[in-house]
Amino acid sequence: MAKQDRAIRTRQTILAAAAKVFEQRGYQAATISEILGTAGVTKGALYFHFESKDDLAQGVLAEQDQRMVVPRRACRTQELVDVVMLHAHRLQTDPMVRAGVRLSLDQQAHDLDRSGPFLRWGQVMDKLLHDARDRGELLPHVIPTETGEVLVGSFAGVQAMSQAVSDYQDLPDRVCALLRHVLPTVVLSSVLASIDLSRTRGALVLAELDASPETALSPGLLDRQPVA
Amino acid sequence: MAKQDRAIRTRQTILAAAAKVFEQRGYQAATISEILGTAGVTKGALYFHFESKDDLAQGVLAEQDQRMVVPRRACRTQELVDVVMLHAHRLQTDPMVRAGVRLSLDQQAHDLDRSGPFLRWGQVMDKLLHDARDRGELLPHVIPTETGEVLVGSFAGVQAMSQAVSDYQDLPDRVCALLRHVLPTVVLSSVLASIDLSRTRGALVLAELDASPETALSPGLLDRQPVA
Repeated sequence: MAKQDRAIRTRQTILAAAAKVFEQRGYQAATISEILGTAGVTKGALYFHFESKDDLAQGVLAEQDQRMVVPRRACRTQELVDVVMLHAHRLQTDPMVRAGVRLSLDQQAHDLDRSGPFLRWGQVMDKLLHDARDRGELLPHVIPTETGEVLVGSFAGVQAMSQAVSDYQDLPDRVCALLRHVLPTVVLSSVLASIDLSRTRGALVLAELDASPETALSPGLLDRQPVA
Repeated sequence: MAKQDRAIRTRQTILAAAAKVFEQRGYQAATISEILGTAGVTKGALYFHFESKDDLAQGVLAEQDQRMVVPRRACRTQELVDVVMLHAHRLQTDPMVRAGVRLSLDQQAHDLDRSGPFLRWGQVMDKLLHDARDRGELLPHVIPTETGEVLVGSFAGVQAMSQAVSDYQDLPDRVCALLRHVLPTVVLSSVLASIDLSRTRGALVLAELDASPETALSPGLLDRQPVA
């Protein structure tokens, strides 16, 4: 294994351990020695990649960005649905995504800047909604930035509610219900009629990405990039 | 002061102290001795009213219920808007409400049953939406329970986002935007046209309640009750 590959793997091992410890203990109570113990790496290796607990948390928060990729669709509204439903599916299945979302809602993490994921998700939604508007998919009164922020905020709460009442078991249903309540005030009904908004959409998109990772697209950045 | 009045005041003093400590420290880190110190009451007084830390937290969570009261309106959709906008206003101004909402989203409070506020808010929305349907205010496809849960979940996230990015400064604007995105898929356009959905609605409703508390109505319980 090349030196660089090994460094990337070590970094991922440390991030996975940090995600686990932050999720179990919360940001405030988590310590670097716990993360070291869970990762099974040396102190030197950890500090080579991350300066501080804050830096580790920002690393976990940023991992979400790597997972905001979906295949290109002719209809941008479908891409938006795909990004949202894929994220819901990953919340059920991917510990790193779950840790990132929980960190971003950790109210006791006073010193941690938690605005990043909200802002980055806002950018992704903003980009997709601007594209959708330019392609004539949206109702004329829609302000893409405002709609994007409503979607990001609502999603954050719907996932928190799903976690509190069902430990994420009902998440796809709740997210579908949210989209069915918001999209008709945003997109043309002719566009709505062509959209797949079923509860299994997230799992479908993930299977598609796993089968052909080269189709992945990062909507916020507008460039094609491989899935990590 | 009658003995009973004094007991009620002591209970409120303890709850206000618990709210403060839970908000600053989170449920897990908070201790009964900190709450005792903040309240300035005796151990005996505290344990007369509350058995445990869990009991104190449930007390803070339940205080939201006392504040779900709004004046009766001819239009039930307006009552729903009033309940939501009043809650947003209280989140900006009432430490007890803020503490309750934050507790219900405290992910590290593993032993605390946090589903109560979600369920109770769900009941309030459910009742209002069923009433609105019976009065012909809703679109025919609406399932009141589903719409109620979407509103409760979305609100929880929009307030968390507002707290993370602006410390609640932009909360009324965000909540208005949420309602403008959801209500058109729920209520008739002729009803929408008669609704006050302005950002100052919460403050207006609170002023109205302060001026004549006897108009207060608890939508979830259907009986008139004085505001605490």
